[in-house]
Amino acid sequence: MINVGIVGGSGYTGAELLRLLVSHPDVKVVVVTSRSCADVKIGRVYPNLARTLDICFSVLDLSQLQQCDVVFFTTPHGVSQTLAPKLLNSGIKVIDLSADFRIRDIAVWERWYGVKHRAPELIPKAVYGLPEFNDERIREADLIACPGCYPTSIQLGLLPLLRCQHLDTKDIIVNASSGVSGAGRTASLTNIYTEVGDNYKAYAADGHRHLPEVVQGLRDISGRSVEVTFVPHLLPINRGIHATIFVNLTDLDLNLHDLYTTAFVDKPFVSILPLGDHPQTRNVRGSNFCQIGLHRPFGGRKAIILVVIDNLIKGASGQAIQCMNLMFDLPETCGLTSIASVP
Amino acid sequence: MINVGIVGGSGYTGAELLRLLVSHPDVKVVVVTSRSCADVKIGRVYPNLARTLDICFSVLDLSQLQQCDVVFFTTPHGVSQTLAPKLLNSGIKVIDLSADFRIRDIAVWERWYGVKHRAPELIPKAVYGLPEFNDERIREADLIACPGCYPTSIQLGLLPLLRCQHLDTKDIIVNASSGVSGAGRTASLTNIYTEVGDNYKAYAADGHRHLPEVVQGLRDISGRSVEVTFVPHLLPINRGIHATIFVNLTDLDLNLHDLYTTAFVDKPFVSILPLGDHPQTRNVRGSNFCQIGLHRPFGGRKAIILVVIDNLIKGASGQAIQCMNLMFDLPETCGLTSIASVP
Amino acid sequence: MINVGIVGGSGYTGAELLRLLVSHPDVKVVVVTSRSCADVKIGRVYPNLARTLDICFSVLDLSQLQQCDVVFFTTPHGVSQTLAPKLLNSGIKVIDLSADFRIRDIAVWERWYGVKHRAPELIPKAVYGLPEFNDERIREADLIACPGCYPTSIQLGLLPLLRCQHLDTKDIIVNASSGVSGAGRTASLTNIYTEVGDNYKAYAADGHRHLPEVVQGLRDISGRSVEVTFVPHLLPINRGIHATIFVNLTDLDLNLHDLYTTAFVDKPFVSILPLGDHPQTRNVRGSNFCQIGLHRPFGGRKAIILVVIDNLIKGASGQAIQCMNLMFDLPETCGLTSIASVP
Amino acid sequence: MINVGIVGGSGYTGAELLRLLVSHPDVKVVVVTSRSCADVKIGRVYPNLARTLDICFSVLDLSQLQQCDVVFFTTPHGVSQTLAPKLLNSGIKVIDLSADFRIRDIAVWERWYGVKHRAPELIPKAVYGLPEFNDERIREADLIACPGCYPTSIQLGLLPLLRCQHLDTKDIIVNASSGVSGAGRTASLTNIYTEVGDNYKAYAADGHRHLPEVVQGLRDISGRSVEVTFVPHLLPINRGIHATIFVNLTDLDLNLHDLYTTAFVDKPFVSILPLGDHPQTRNVRGSNFCQIGLHRPFGGRKAIILVVIDNLIKGASGQAIQCMNLMFDLPETCGLTSIASVP
Repeated sequence: MINVGIVGGSGYTGAELLRLLVSHPDVKVVVVTSRSCADVKIGRVYPNLARTLDICFSVLDLSQLQQCDVVFFTTPHGVSQTLAPKLLNSGIKVIDLSADFRIRDIAVWERWYGVKHRAPELIPKAVYGLPEFNDERIREADLIACPGCYPTSIQLGLLPLLRCQHLDTKDIIVNASSGVSGAGRTASLTNIYTEVGDNYKAYAADGHRHLPEVVQGLRDISGRSVEVTFVPHLLPINRGIHATIFVNLTDLDLNLHDLYTTAFVDKPFVSILPLGDHPQTRNVRGSNFCQIGLHRPFGGRKAIILVVIDNLIKGASGQAIQCMNLMFDLPETCGLTSIASVP
Repeated sequence: MINVGIVGGSGYTGAELLRLLVSHPDVKVVVVTSRSCADVKIGRVYPNLARTLDICFSVLDLSQLQQCDVVFFTTPHGVSQTLAPKLLNSGIKVIDLSADFRIRDIAVWERWYGVKHRAPELIPKAVYGLPEFNDERIREADLIACPGCYPTSIQLGLLPLLRCQHLDTKDIIVNASSGVSGAGRTASLTNIYTEVGDNYKAYAADGHRHLPEVVQGLRDISGRSVEVTFVPHLLPINRGIHATIFVNLTDLDLNLHDLYTTAFVDKPFVSILPLGDHPQTRNVRGSNFCQIGLHRPFGGRKAIILVVIDNLIKGASGQAIQCMNLMFDLPETCGLTSIASVP
Repeated sequence: MINVGIVGGSGYTGAELLRLLVSHPDVKVVVVTSRSCADVKIGRVYPNLARTLDICFSVLDLSQLQQCDVVFFTTPHGVSQTLAPKLLNSGIKVIDLSADFRIRDIAVWERWYGVKHRAPELIPKAVYGLPEFNDERIREADLIACPGCYPTSIQLGLLPLLRCQHLDTKDIIVNASSGVSGAGRTASLTNIYTEVGDNYKAYAADGHRHLPEVVQGLRDISGRSVEVTFVPHLLPINRGIHATIFVNLTDLDLNLHDLYTTAFVDKPFVSILPLGDHPQTRNVRGSNFCQIGLHRPFGGRKAIILVVIDNLIKGASGQAIQCMNLMFDLPETCGLTSIASVP
Repeated sequence: MINVGIVGGSGYTGAELLRLLVSHPDVKVVVVTSRSCADVKIGRVYPNLARTLDICFSVLDLSQLQQCDVVFFTTPHGVSQTLAPKLLNSGIKVIDLSADFRIRDIAVWERWYGVKHRAPELIPKAVYGLPEFNDERIREADLIACPGCYPTSIQLGLLPLLRCQHLDTKDIIVNASSGVSGAGRTASLTNIYTEVGDNYKAYAADGHRHLPEVVQGLRDISGRSVEVTFVPHLLPINRGIHATIFVNLTDLDLNLHDLYTTAFVDKPFVSILPLGDHPQTRNVRGSNFCQIGLHRPFGGRKAIILVVIDNLIKGASGQAIQCMNLMFDLPETCGLTSIASVP
């Protein structure tokens, strides 16, 4: 059994991590820390978990974490960078769901997050946890920087095109929409029901924190420089990301559907829909799956790639477990096969 | 023109009050205070109002309020009781949308609100602002205590039965549901979208602050003692109250529909639906109307009364303006005739 | 392996049955019929199932069904009563999710459903599939009449009180709300998004088809005559039932919480919440669990019982599988342990 | 008073037209036809209108319509083209909210709508009813082709840029989302609550019927050829359109905000938001207003224009009344000044 610790477990990614891990056959959850909920039964905060998990959230105690084989961080940025060094020194693997180790260029990270990075020496060691791109390196990693939710959807949606040479990487447009859980479990006026319900809006059109991660990721996959325009929107639903990606093809004879089905043929969590279909967020809700639809209106140079994931699972906790499975030499899908419940 | 001031105008009842007042033909809004939004243009907080209302929220300044003919309070409890005495002394009418003057029994008020009342001498002067019950007294009033949203729906739903003698007042059951705006515009974890969306629950089943107001109101109307069981629920919608009221009739020959249509025949905001119909919250959304449906399953002693109002309008700001109209000898419906937009 | 057939599998209960059965370790789905979707890949209608289940819906073919060990009916009323006799004669077990065999009094059934029953001789053999009440008889049954969704929630909510003698069974009030999936996957004007969204209403307040089943069920459990007032409401959510039950206790010293925890101590799918808690539909969404909250305002004679289930699972497909597990001597929870995903 | 007739009034655009017209000071609604609801009181279908409008829907009777000054068509395509000729011959003005007269190229219209046009001779006489572009011609018109909802939002969003020469018209990308009322009040499986709720998807990514209208409109405004990529999405809300438009500027020194505020300075229904703001659908819900936000990430060549309208009002019934006001020499805003109710 893998002994697992979670730091910052009372948020939504923590709750989903817990829900998935308690039914994972090879995992034992030994400690879940939470500053705001310390000493409260997990089932009091998340009654869905009450029957299955009869422990309390605890205050952070490094010695407890050091009894784990792997520690997940589901914390805001700035936390894992202070604790990861100690855990890694003790031989404990770290899977970080925060933004702390996603960006290799420290200056860029510090500009977007507005604070000084406290463990720059670890950044080169962090492996970007997108298994569909990076599985071999993930298997060997001690420190995983899990991708953000938007970047996961965008990179999966563009991976096959970035690897071939038939894409104009200088004009990629991403129009994405997210459910509200992307903002976490935090009391903020902009997230109260009455500000979001029966409403729809773009936000951060001038620049979202996920943009540098997207640019870095697309560049890493393609080996070329990229220019991305990215506008996120807020959906009045709890979860789900839908990315609508507009690109220009440089080869009009390209068979887009073949390219994508081939690229993902051995990827258990990515489905390419039949030609002409449109993916729906509900078809992956609560699951680690990603569905991709492909369109080329009137057979022209514009390709439209439609991608859906569950932001809390494939965009966070599920993908983190997928990385853990690879790191501990388990089947990639272990504990992650449950499918969306529709409607 | 009536010069109007609003204290605490940046919340949702304030916003709806403003929306209604800017198109009221006899009103001029001269000052709107808000601690949290002072010096901010109203249109920055409520872009729907931007084109119509080009003033800023201001800090509370008694001398400014004293230039008004009437001041509305859309504040949490505890505020109007400190300011109302000064305004009333200056000859300014006060319409209080908070709970400060709703309960005549000070001990009861203090028990439910947990603080000492600071203007007990005003309570006997406050007139309960339910125009369908109380219009004559409202016309003469200087201080109006506007009913709560749930109490408005419940009292309108029971008014005709309470006035006749064919109701068992000792066993009244009210199962009510409210949209989230009933909780105001406040950042609280229980009201964020992801805690309310795609969800439904009861709350305060052991006792809600509106209960003593309901009991007092039903007793005032009926002249008898009453026993009420009241369970509120939280709906994943922005606005609307639906009350389902279960009562026992003591006269099985009663024609419920006749009783109700007669009782409300000259009340411009209350509609009795055709027999067998079920009211829907959307049909009164954004309006000051109340719709009531009546049912007697299998012709038995149980009557089921279904009531819908918009909690922010007939349950708050619209009703407050309805009171103002009466106090200033205007037609009761002035500025309040707009109807719900469906769907 | 249990070979399973499903008749009428393209509706929502069919889809959920499929989703649950494909991950059930002892089941093989061999045939799924659908008139409207015959010869269409299941994954085209339900893309969430596409990766897991690579078969087509088929037209109904009795000989195919006769190769099954058990056949589920997720059909409108009137279908299973024509097919069940043939299947039972062939030694095949039948689990009927429709209303055909729920009511023992044929005259009552025919009055509420407006058609003549075509297999009245089977009604005495049908076992009512509420495992928390009836597990011993279910184990021996060949024909299961699965409870309706509302009746499941109401019977679970009242079971402990009905079995003791401290309840006034002559005045039971049930105010229940359901998500829209309770109406099935049918194109009807009343169920389109724009008629339900941002709205709330009661329906069938004069008498709902589930009422006679509720009355029969409560009478069976208590051994006494019962009188029930039942008003269902339509929630703007996809799934979930919340029942708010008001009853009069005849013993004011009763410890309600003890009574309930004891009654359900060995029932794996029913949780009694801590005193003062309110269940939420989301905490059981997508799962076979039921959560119950108990309230006695001001310690009086009124007890308020709050019950939540997922109407498609514990109120339909999950409960049907729970019955199958008992009939085939499997652990009651087999294939049914997944928990709700929050938010 | 203007005597108004409405053909096909039982749909949502009909209902909103009625709601707006009953409070229009210069209008008398004399006849409202509906095949499906003939002889039914309008208030039975739309209880929000019950108190205000005490007439029945009627069967279509040309002689009745000929007593009107103007007839609105809120019908599916194919209806107005058969009736408009007779009405126009009788000197009655026609305002058509359907697609029948929007496209000047008959071959294009027939290809997208799949039927033969039955009044091609009228097409040159039809005036495109976008008042912000076309008010002078609308004033003189007898036959108005009201714009579709998506085309309204897109043309308003691009109008100032199309008129200057600083836009690359060969690569315009429109990513738009609509509430479900855009699909009308029709029972169809794809529009039932459970297929749309808690979900988000693109549709018609390969070509939507509004595309030729958009292309024609943008070409008319700019006088140049245009290429548009248009992907619509379905939002789980009742109403509202949000268009996110991506364009390339050819002049990097352009002051976008100045350009837009100047272009719309005398347009009463279009607001340009402060720099950096994002419009929200709720801020125009239920109103005839349009709000536009402007962004240029990192000051580059990409401009992002965000547009919100209410699809049923500025995108349909409100705009039709705006045209009527111009045709009858009334103030453009007459009957259209009500503002969105938030939240």
